[in-house]
Amino acid sequence: MSISMVAEHARWPKENDAIFGLAARAKEAIDKYGRENVIDSTLGALVDDEGNLICLETVYNELKSLPNAAIAAYAQVAGQPDYLEAVQQACFGRYKPDAHIRAVATPGGTGSVRHGIVNYSNPGDSILIADWFWSPYVTISEEYGITVTTFELFNDKNQFNIADFKEKFEDLIKKQKRLVTVLNTPANNPTGYSLSDEEWDEVLNIAKENAKDPENKIIIVVDCAYIDYAGVGDERRKFFSKFSNLPDNIFVIIAYSMSKGYTMYGMRSGAAIGISSNEDIVEEFYYSCMHANRANWSNGTRAAMEVMIRIAKDPEKTKAYENEVKETKTMLRKRAEAFVEASKEVGLEILPYRDGFFVSIPYENAKKASEELTKENMFVVALKKGLRFAVCAVSEEKCKTAPAIIKKVLDRIDT
Amino acid sequence: MSISMVAEHARWPKENDAIFGLAARAKEAIDKYGRENVIDSTLGALVDDEGNLICLETVYNELKSLPNAAIAAYAQVAGQPDYLEAVQQACFGRYKPDAHIRAVATPGGTGSVRHGIVNYSNPGDSILIADWFWSPYVTISEEYGITVTTFELFNDKNQFNIADFKEKFEDLIKKQKRLVTVLNTPANNPTGYSLSDEEWDEVLNIAKENAKDPENKIIIVVDCAYIDYAGVGDERRKFFSKFSNLPDNIFVIIAYSMSKGYTMYGMRSGAAIGISSNEDIVEEFYYSCMHANRANWSNGTRAAMEVMIRIAKDPEKTKAYENEVKETKTMLRKRAEAFVEASKEVGLEILPYRDGFFVSIPYENAKKASEELTKENMFVVALKKGLRFAVCAVSEEKCKTAPAIIKKVLDRIDT
Repeated sequence: MSISMVAEHARWPKENDAIFGLAARAKEAIDKYGRENVIDSTLGALVDDEGNLICLETVYNELKSLPNAAIAAYAQVAGQPDYLEAVQQACFGRYKPDAHIRAVATPGGTGSVRHGIVNYSNPGDSILIADWFWSPYVTISEEYGITVTTFELFNDKNQFNIADFKEKFEDLIKKQKRLVTVLNTPANNPTGYSLSDEEWDEVLNIAKENAKDPENKIIIVVDCAYIDYAGVGDERRKFFSKFSNLPDNIFVIIAYSMSKGYTMYGMRSGAAIGISSNEDIVEEFYYSCMHANRANWSNGTRAAMEVMIRIAKDPEKTKAYENEVKETKTMLRKRAEAFVEASKEVGLEILPYRDGFFVSIPYENAKKASEELTKENMFVVALKKGLRFAVCAVSEEKCKTAPAIIKKVLDRIDT
Repeated sequence: MSISMVAEHARWPKENDAIFGLAARAKEAIDKYGRENVIDSTLGALVDDEGNLICLETVYNELKSLPNAAIAAYAQVAGQPDYLEAVQQACFGRYKPDAHIRAVATPGGTGSVRHGIVNYSNPGDSILIADWFWSPYVTISEEYGITVTTFELFNDKNQFNIADFKEKFEDLIKKQKRLVTVLNTPANNPTGYSLSDEEWDEVLNIAKENAKDPENKIIIVVDCAYIDYAGVGDERRKFFSKFSNLPDNIFVIIAYSMSKGYTMYGMRSGAAIGISSNEDIVEEFYYSCMHANRANWSNGTRAAMEVMIRIAKDPEKTKAYENEVKETKTMLRKRAEAFVEASKEVGLEILPYRDGFFVSIPYENAKKASEELTKENMFVVALKKGLRFAVCAVSEEKCKTAPAIIKKVLDRIDT
């Protein structure tokens, strides 16, 4: 038995990222068989029809014209003040809640979700997330001795399963008196689901009902990483205004990311935005996150903040940027519609898609299916409960043909 | 009494960064009295004689000529493989230890120090650092329920206090059986001290002596954030080769940062580099850090990694970059020498300076002194045990005159 040096709490299995391995195999297949013969749906980033990562011109022109010093300098620990203003506008749009609000810069949405989960849970607590989830929620939680409870995102009718959410929510709050729930909406990863405004009302009603016990502390983390690709206009931001006038013991944290909306995945910029009716609670949030920033990564990527600030301050740049996002969003929607339509035609069961980068196919033996699909030169990520098809990374043409191939392979496995 | 929502462990005082406040006051003074009449020694970054942040041309030309996709794409969670190679070369130079070595990308040196402290300590443990220290060591530790013990960096003769290091080291290892010690050398922040090769031998002898008990786990974190501005040639990297053939229960982690050497403070890139005679131990380190990366910030800034990779792969670019660093280092050395020389002339007591961005002036009532100095239009950061003068941020001319002003003010307070 070999010696170990790391502390018990920081010892983890020697696991590499599964998605990265599959992406590497997709690349091999492309090199061997040609791009036109391969469907690579591994990547969680926007790719054009020729397989190139989409990088918004407005964003990169701005980045590359920044004075060097605006890239080189340290940002403030909490983030540049102008950024913390601009990011609220970028996030809420016309639907800023009527509440006390404070933002803190974080590396991407991850840092923000981390602050929400870790700073608002006690070790040993369980957080509540959907059973279709982005796996880092588990990584973050287990890193800090926090467990994860899932509710069923959909009921038998493929509707948002508010009943199961309520049951799990109340079980946990009864036991813990404190509950962090992370809702990844709109444009859920991996399902593409977005809570409707009515579903948000139901969620908030459950929270308010449980907030009547003043001992209960309810924290709702809204991971809206994909919000810029949700809806047609800004209707998918409307729910933000529901966070006005909540009881003091319901605290909302928005995990905002520049990764997708600004196509700056690799620049690591986002924000944690705290919303409360009580000023003390957002102040407490601000200083808690600032301490955690300093203790983990010190400060954020200055250049990314500068890009957002400069685009936000110039109405023409804002417009050009918004147009570019809109164009990309339209492209994405066409792909998703093609996939959904084709699935219906061939009888492939998919989860209800509303917005965003991914569509999910419920399937018990997902690992096997993912492996079998590679034989058809199709690369799709296996999740616990199904397959995740990344319409963000696949052309409309291929989105039309993919469902038939998937259906064929699943049928082959099932027989 | 107002309601609190944050978890107990994440509640912190409402404190803003003191250095930032002082820097803002310095800027005000410059606007009011003119740059030539103000000495702003607050910033921990290289500034030219005209007060402009130094941004290496070789670095920023490379950054701005990167294809957009090389900036936009996610980096791998552990860092790009080419980066993890290049960063070892950048760090060790000709003195790579003969050992098993693995690197993981982190946001600046902070992320790397964080991994060293947090992943290798148990909650309630105490780490060991010098009494002249970079304050985030405390922030990181307290964030995770870890305490800090200090040893006296200097003895009465202003030599490295190996006796006190030994005493505190052995006290802690006896109690905890596990000890993380962070040594910020060469070019210590805030003193400018660098351990000599002989002093490193003494440190390692103490570690080896205590490693004879196989139950002891000794972790040495070397924070070498300022290494590129240490020494004249590469003599300040020589100590790295001493990390060859250590006992399995001495694990060394190098906290490497691109912030200073590449003048990319705001780009947040660095690495944690683990060194062991035992392959399993560096593997364990790698997966522990990868998990912590994913759970805190997900992945690092891709563009910064790409810049290092591209400069490292092209010998001409490497040479141009090294020449630029050398020029900057010479400028810095001249400033420091001017400050040290002038201190001697006016009889201002300073700590032994060898390398780097800062010189420290031991003084009990540092806060008062810092405040009094602002009246002379000089802005110097107050530490617990003295003042930190940032030669990195002040022209040679002003480095010559500053000690007399400081001496005058300290004398005024003392009488």
